[in-house]
Amino acid sequence: MKWSQTHLFTLKEAPSDAEIPSHKLMVRAGLIKKLAPGIHTYGNMGLRAIRKFENIIREELEKSNCIEILMPMVHPKELWSETNRWNEMGAGLLKFKNRMDQDFCLGATHEEAVVDYVRHELKSWRDFPKNIYQIQTKYRDEIRPRFGLMRGREFSMKDAYSFDMDQAGALKAYDQMYAAYQRIFNRLGLNYRIVQADAGNIGGSQTHEFQLLADAGEDALLVSTKTNFAANVEVCPAIDAVPYVSKETTMKDIEKFETPGQKTIADLATFTNVPANELVKTLFYSANEGNNPKDVSLKAFAVLLRGSDEVNPIKIKNFLKMANEPRMLTDAEVLEVSGANPGSCGPVGLKIPMYLDNGLQGFKNFIVGANEDGFHLKNVNTEKDFKQTAFADLRMAKDGDKCPESDGTLKSFRGIEVGHVFYLGQKYAKAMNGVFLDKNGKSQFYEMGCYGIGVTRTVQAAIEQSHDQDGIIWPKEIAPFHVHICLLDIKDDELKSYVEKLTAELEAKKIEVFIDDRDERPGFKFKDADLLGFPVRVVVGRKGFDAAQLEVVNRKTKEVTKLAPNEVAAKVTELLK
Amino acid sequence: MKWSQTHLFTLKEAPSDAEIPSHKLMVRAGLIKKLAPGIHTYGNMGLRAIRKFENIIREELEKSNCIEILMPMVHPKELWSETNRWNEMGAGLLKFKNRMDQDFCLGATHEEAVVDYVRHELKSWRDFPKNIYQIQTKYRDEIRPRFGLMRGREFSMKDAYSFDMDQAGALKAYDQMYAAYQRIFNRLGLNYRIVQADAGNIGGSQTHEFQLLADAGEDALLVSTKTNFAANVEVCPAIDAVPYVSKETTMKDIEKFETPGQKTIADLATFTNVPANELVKTLFYSANEGNNPKDVSLKAFAVLLRGSDEVNPIKIKNFLKMANEPRMLTDAEVLEVSGANPGSCGPVGLKIPMYLDNGLQGFKNFIVGANEDGFHLKNVNTEKDFKQTAFADLRMAKDGDKCPESDGTLKSFRGIEVGHVFYLGQKYAKAMNGVFLDKNGKSQFYEMGCYGIGVTRTVQAAIEQSHDQDGIIWPKEIAPFHVHICLLDIKDDELKSYVEKLTAELEAKKIEVFIDDRDERPGFKFKDADLLGFPVRVVVGRKGFDAAQLEVVNRKTKEVTKLAPNEVAAKVTELLK
Repeated sequence: MKWSQTHLFTLKEAPSDAEIPSHKLMVRAGLIKKLAPGIHTYGNMGLRAIRKFENIIREELEKSNCIEILMPMVHPKELWSETNRWNEMGAGLLKFKNRMDQDFCLGATHEEAVVDYVRHELKSWRDFPKNIYQIQTKYRDEIRPRFGLMRGREFSMKDAYSFDMDQAGALKAYDQMYAAYQRIFNRLGLNYRIVQADAGNIGGSQTHEFQLLADAGEDALLVSTKTNFAANVEVCPAIDAVPYVSKETTMKDIEKFETPGQKTIADLATFTNVPANELVKTLFYSANEGNNPKDVSLKAFAVLLRGSDEVNPIKIKNFLKMANEPRMLTDAEVLEVSGANPGSCGPVGLKIPMYLDNGLQGFKNFIVGANEDGFHLKNVNTEKDFKQTAFADLRMAKDGDKCPESDGTLKSFRGIEVGHVFYLGQKYAKAMNGVFLDKNGKSQFYEMGCYGIGVTRTVQAAIEQSHDQDGIIWPKEIAPFHVHICLLDIKDDELKSYVEKLTAELEAKKIEVFIDDRDERPGFKFKDADLLGFPVRVVVGRKGFDAAQLEVVNRKTKEVTKLAPNEVAAKVTELLK
Repeated sequence: MKWSQTHLFTLKEAPSDAEIPSHKLMVRAGLIKKLAPGIHTYGNMGLRAIRKFENIIREELEKSNCIEILMPMVHPKELWSETNRWNEMGAGLLKFKNRMDQDFCLGATHEEAVVDYVRHELKSWRDFPKNIYQIQTKYRDEIRPRFGLMRGREFSMKDAYSFDMDQAGALKAYDQMYAAYQRIFNRLGLNYRIVQADAGNIGGSQTHEFQLLADAGEDALLVSTKTNFAANVEVCPAIDAVPYVSKETTMKDIEKFETPGQKTIADLATFTNVPANELVKTLFYSANEGNNPKDVSLKAFAVLLRGSDEVNPIKIKNFLKMANEPRMLTDAEVLEVSGANPGSCGPVGLKIPMYLDNGLQGFKNFIVGANEDGFHLKNVNTEKDFKQTAFADLRMAKDGDKCPESDGTLKSFRGIEVGHVFYLGQKYAKAMNGVFLDKNGKSQFYEMGCYGIGVTRTVQAAIEQSHDQDGIIWPKEIAPFHVHICLLDIKDDELKSYVEKLTAELEAKKIEVFIDDRDERPGFKFKDADLLGFPVRVVVGRKGFDAAQLEVVNRKTKEVTKLAPNEVAAKVTELLK
């Protein structure tokens, strides 16, 4: 394709709302253009990359006998009411009424739609297993869309759904998809990790995330230095590499002391000369999930952890078997519960459940708030001065913590979630009467899994991981084109015909060629070639042509090879192997 | 692909809401399944056909240098307000608010979105021409969706938009797209006509429709028996093959006579013994288009035509340069305007504009209503008894009318509109400030055209045109598979390995093979093969195999050839040429 025949206008500057490199580069390279916040048009180059990734997905899923269909983007309320997700999904599910005042929503995910699609057909044990997928536009009414396609409102996903007779079958389907996802992301040639993650409220119990590593990633990951262990920080066990043991040997008597204006752990550490990791902070939450509107009780509870640690609300949720993360109490509620304002609160004397992070095991004679503004207590000890409800793993794991599987440690990375696999069990089958007759003629609910890949998000994440200061460095498999020919003397007939011949030769080998035939200066063209970032650049100018010194440039390494015209095709082919 | 590895459940009976053959067949063959009225899931077979048609479109448009992009399905109100179509589009445009109370709609068409996409970039005469297209899901809030994908709410369209510096360029782009559409529909091998049509309120002045011929088509077409002339009845000129000339020689005196209870033309023809095509009917309309809410005047006018003719409201609209078809007066309004109820009204004595259809030229001493209930007038003549405002072509053309271009006649067909090309002029550029600098540095509005193909609709229309009592007869180019192998003895290893070898041999020639490996009776399998309708069926059973009499069946002609196993591949290949 020639530049003059497409619609491509690169930008020198990124728009002010583009915060991360990939977003800036995608806009500057004309891959996307914003129509409204979180809603983008994909330009021809962007679409080419997206389609290539879609085809990789199709090829690998078909190897696993997945069946492609296409479900609607507009769904009737009745469907989502069957699982109660019409209510549970919250404001992210965009709902509206049609001209006949009937309720609909835009599909944010398709569990309900796919069960409706199969439930009148999967009637016998002979009909299993099935794995059905689609690549479809999704819409989620993000309150604060940002980062281009990374957290958009309208985006494209591949979503697959497995149907099996029993749990063993479902877990086998899970493993097959896990393997297919590995093949898919391996083909991109990018650096990714498969991590344990939280299943959220989608309804399952086993889940892994596929995370492309990138500094701008929204997810924090921890990866073992010794084993394959990797987890999203949401669920990563937190184990001290060197367990803390207090130097104190005996329990002392509790003592109140004045701490005027010392509200933060940092303040208190300076004021008391005790390091933050030997101080204890007390946080207050409500266990009332609001399921019963008549119940306005707070159901307050406290979580205690080291001053240097960060609480992990997902661990609290999972430990207490709550549906959602617990709500932190407001300052006024804390005052009501403890008698003091945040900064002076502690466990002593309170009659609410107390959950202590495992990091506090081994603590003796420690400092906590006195539940009286401007005062703290020292020489506090569990059991003696207050009764803990339980010890549990409630803090965020961090770089340097112990690997849960080995004597290695954990190293932290940032990741962009591009895929996930979920084992769903019978949740949707039960809600939507998904039953079949087993070999004994008995009616059973089937087991499901669901498996997503963010198609548009992956394309951007690839750029986030693979770029330099000059522009994109496309992985070959999803590069919009493989070769970028900078034709410098656009009116030189000999060069034009050389470029035509070279293009034909490369295209015969399925190498896709983009030709910059614009009437622009060489430096301008080279800058655009770097920005667009196709794997190989060939510079065709009169001087180089006459001197048998045509430049073939590896975009990634910037390595330049100078060759005679008839050597170029072979070199390009070699670089693309 | 093997039947056992896909998700396909055929139905013996069509659902009760399927009225036309193609809708019934698509549901029965598992191509589509309804999620809500006008909203369907495309099964794997349906999706395969759709994708093949999409690829035909892509290939042909790329030959015409069209550039593929993908625009969003959700659009902000601000965009549609620029052209005032937020209001003008009516209830078919599905509007909703997001969680922040901002107004959006689902894209029903993309003129506004595409102008927004290009308007900051097409700045110089050097940037033209451009032709940008997408294949995207569209949503129109049809009040009464029916006929499956033919008049659905959610459907897929290819929409292209041309941008040119001047009208000459725009008309050239129009011709190029016209030619590309011919190539696209020729490849389907179906019977279609390109017809003149009404431009509606999309804003252009030149338009053609591509119509697949089918009895269930919603459009009436008229096609010349002698030339290439073809038109939608909406705009087809109506010319009598044999012009009517009254046998009367002199004008007689007007005479009122009693016609008690004679309200319809049929009644009156019997009562007066004058044939309907020599009677005159008078219809009343309002020219008030409601643009000014304070203007409640009726602006009544009358249209007169032969009793045997049908009025064409689009011709009235176009003749009077109205934005929409005029509203017929209610019975009460007719009484107010004429002094009589419908059935006894006529032109004599009324002070409103009178438009006479050309068919009344040559009428003398004719009968009209007397504007007095139960009375008519005879011996009425134009000029003498009432003053016509104008004669014009205001009736529906019909089978047997004269070809406007030759001495041939018109033959009527029913058609399904699958494509249209529109010349838009500067309407959208002017509304959205689509300007560029011409060669003289002067700012100009660019010229546009828009070009649509109903992707999902075409697939169904193909079936509507190409089927028999047993099922679908797929055109080869969009058949989900080319060959349907009925493997009769599914546990016979020799046959299984023969089918595998045959499949490999055919697939090497890019022939796509579907294998019915279900444990079902032969007759059951043959019925499904006919229903699914892939071009060639091969029956592989032990008896035929041993006798070297394997059946190769042409789905369209039902012709059966019996061959030795090693002759089958060649025959299949030949049939698919």
